[in-house]
Amino acid sequence: MISPQEHADRRARLLERVHAIGASGYALFDPTYITYFTGFWFLSNERPIVYLQSAGGDDAIFVPEFEVERTRSESSFARVESYPEYPGPEHPMLVLARVAADLGLRGTIAADNDGYPGILGYRGPALSDVTGASVTLVGEEIEQMLVRKSPGEVELLRESGRWCAHAHRLLEQYTRVGSTEAEASLRAQQETTLAMLAAHGSRGLLGSGDGAKAGFRGQIGLRSSWAHAVAHNIEFQPGDVLVTETGAPVWGYQAELERALIIGPPTDRMRWLFDHMLGSREAAFAAIRPGATCADVDGAVMDYFARHDLQRYWRQHTGHGAGLRNHEAPFLDIGDPTPLQPGMVFTIEPGLYEPEVGGFRHSDTVVVTDLGYELLTDHPADLESLTLPV
Amino acid sequence: MISPQEHADRRARLLERVHAIGASGYALFDPTYITYFTGFWFLSNERPIVYLQSAGGDDAIFVPEFEVERTRSESSFARVESYPEYPGPEHPMLVLARVAADLGLRGTIAADNDGYPGILGYRGPALSDVTGASVTLVGEEIEQMLVRKSPGEVELLRESGRWCAHAHRLLEQYTRVGSTEAEASLRAQQETTLAMLAAHGSRGLLGSGDGAKAGFRGQIGLRSSWAHAVAHNIEFQPGDVLVTETGAPVWGYQAELERALIIGPPTDRMRWLFDHMLGSREAAFAAIRPGATCADVDGAVMDYFARHDLQRYWRQHTGHGAGLRNHEAPFLDIGDPTPLQPGMVFTIEPGLYEPEVGGFRHSDTVVVTDLGYELLTDHPADLESLTLPV
Repeated sequence: MISPQEHADRRARLLERVHAIGASGYALFDPTYITYFTGFWFLSNERPIVYLQSAGGDDAIFVPEFEVERTRSESSFARVESYPEYPGPEHPMLVLARVAADLGLRGTIAADNDGYPGILGYRGPALSDVTGASVTLVGEEIEQMLVRKSPGEVELLRESGRWCAHAHRLLEQYTRVGSTEAEASLRAQQETTLAMLAAHGSRGLLGSGDGAKAGFRGQIGLRSSWAHAVAHNIEFQPGDVLVTETGAPVWGYQAELERALIIGPPTDRMRWLFDHMLGSREAAFAAIRPGATCADVDGAVMDYFARHDLQRYWRQHTGHGAGLRNHEAPFLDIGDPTPLQPGMVFTIEPGLYEPEVGGFRHSDTVVVTDLGYELLTDHPADLESLTLPV
Repeated sequence: MISPQEHADRRARLLERVHAIGASGYALFDPTYITYFTGFWFLSNERPIVYLQSAGGDDAIFVPEFEVERTRSESSFARVESYPEYPGPEHPMLVLARVAADLGLRGTIAADNDGYPGILGYRGPALSDVTGASVTLVGEEIEQMLVRKSPGEVELLRESGRWCAHAHRLLEQYTRVGSTEAEASLRAQQETTLAMLAAHGSRGLLGSGDGAKAGFRGQIGLRSSWAHAVAHNIEFQPGDVLVTETGAPVWGYQAELERALIIGPPTDRMRWLFDHMLGSREAAFAAIRPGATCADVDGAVMDYFARHDLQRYWRQHTGHGAGLRNHEAPFLDIGDPTPLQPGMVFTIEPGLYEPEVGGFRHSDTVVVTDLGYELLTDHPADLESLTLPV
């Protein structure tokens, strides 16, 4: 798990930004950001949960009253403030304004958003309205902080990658003619989640509420040519082309592992598309190094497609960031000029899609290193390994 | 499922609002709203998917290029417009601006949000910026439309309630001393999901990506006194007090069924808390009728607590709306003056929580009718039925 010291270091970095803009402190409304900066886990809903820290370092977590006992028990916040309910006898934002004032937040307050977002029927006034302060949005700066992963974060993603591979092996084992998408998916997910719990105890799944994921999102047979389908509980047939997905949150950190699979011997056309998918993937891997840009990596894949006259099979950019969220910036996309830096984590998932044949995509998770990259998802990628028995 | 005619009727109602404010049309960025008004399902991520309709009724769905084939195949939009990728060679919002112009959206445009929200690393300009139009937010009006459910929606919630009960029976069966939270939860979820698929085929789970849910969110033993805990993979012990949760999306509509359970014979104290939970629940049910307000129902529960000197066991308001989202407005809360109307759907879940004993909460889903309410979650609520063998 991420150490309390690392959480403190993250907050210190954010406070540097707060000081730079002359703010009296900051407020975080986004649950992922609260977890990132404090390590606190909770079920997010229409009842606001907010973290406040003053420029001087005093802080408070702000929760509905029914969360107070658990928060005291499962976190180490010096100060836990609360409101009765939402909407309740008094709007929670009015209570929050008093807590903010008490912490010395006034004048200019930095925040990820000017108030709690309108999720699940929540409605309420802006932070600037209830405090009278000027709110400076620092969401972009926070997103920047999330981009480069620490060694501790990379280790959790590496562990996640191992469990993705575990889930994938089971998914391959249960993907058999006559069985269905849901049967294979649910069984692989259940067994992987129980194996993770047996290995970690409750550690490593805390707060996520979710265990491992494994499935096909409907990308089975010709539907595999739709880069994002939705589940249809399809029964597997001989000759099916499939695109998998697996995920396994470890303290919330999520690697991604996907494979193109074929049930039964591949046709020549399938083999040709599969081989070019591997070729485009190698082009991406070869382009990853500090100093290259996100666009360079995607450009290397686009070049591969162009060189082999494959553009009509292209559907998606090369990859996306990953961490506490399964998708995050930056993007391995010709439109993203972000330079690669050590600690950035990306999926590498160029694919070829032909409506009359199917979709061919692997997705792996890599971390950029000083010299190139490290693969965090170690799983066979060759066609022979990924051809399932009929 | 919801009929195409009902979706058309919903859009017509929204267009009435659009006409009233003199807008040239509207744009929807929220995935739930797009599903509500069009029946279209998709995986939402950092790539914007947007629905546009002109005041005259012309419309278009706007998707990333890789979604075009699936969208044409699985929906009946007359017009499917697309952009290559996000961020891509040109920002998707610039492409969207041309589609909006082509549909005649200019001057004033109604929208749920002034642009695509910053999820999963997305960043982009506002709709008003790229169109030069004045954007009038109609999110509040849309939320109002969602509140009263149609007969078709109630039938889906009724079906969801039946599957919640199915999941709950299995969860009770698998909750045994020596087994764990994850084992019982995963098994009940898996079997319920497969039973739903066997009964409905792919129908009824489409798009949700999720099957049935069943579990305890960590509310086991003394942790049950925390109204929202998080999963800890706890092993069940004799004497445990537990609070369950089940859900089963049917075309996305989600009823909620929760029960307080006790493993082994209840103590007198447990019986006392359980009985008062039932009493407060009856107070809530008795207060539900058209014309009463949300606050009245919560007030009836608060009165029950006060009359029996139980306030120190109170933690949460009486309930919340439910539909395509598992929580939505309005809220059965003393701070919500919304009058009850037929077709509104609520959870009824007053609870008593004592840190030294445990938490006692049932949650049921009801629809307000002309005369009172109909229970959508038919499951035993008495202590004898909910005492599990040691």
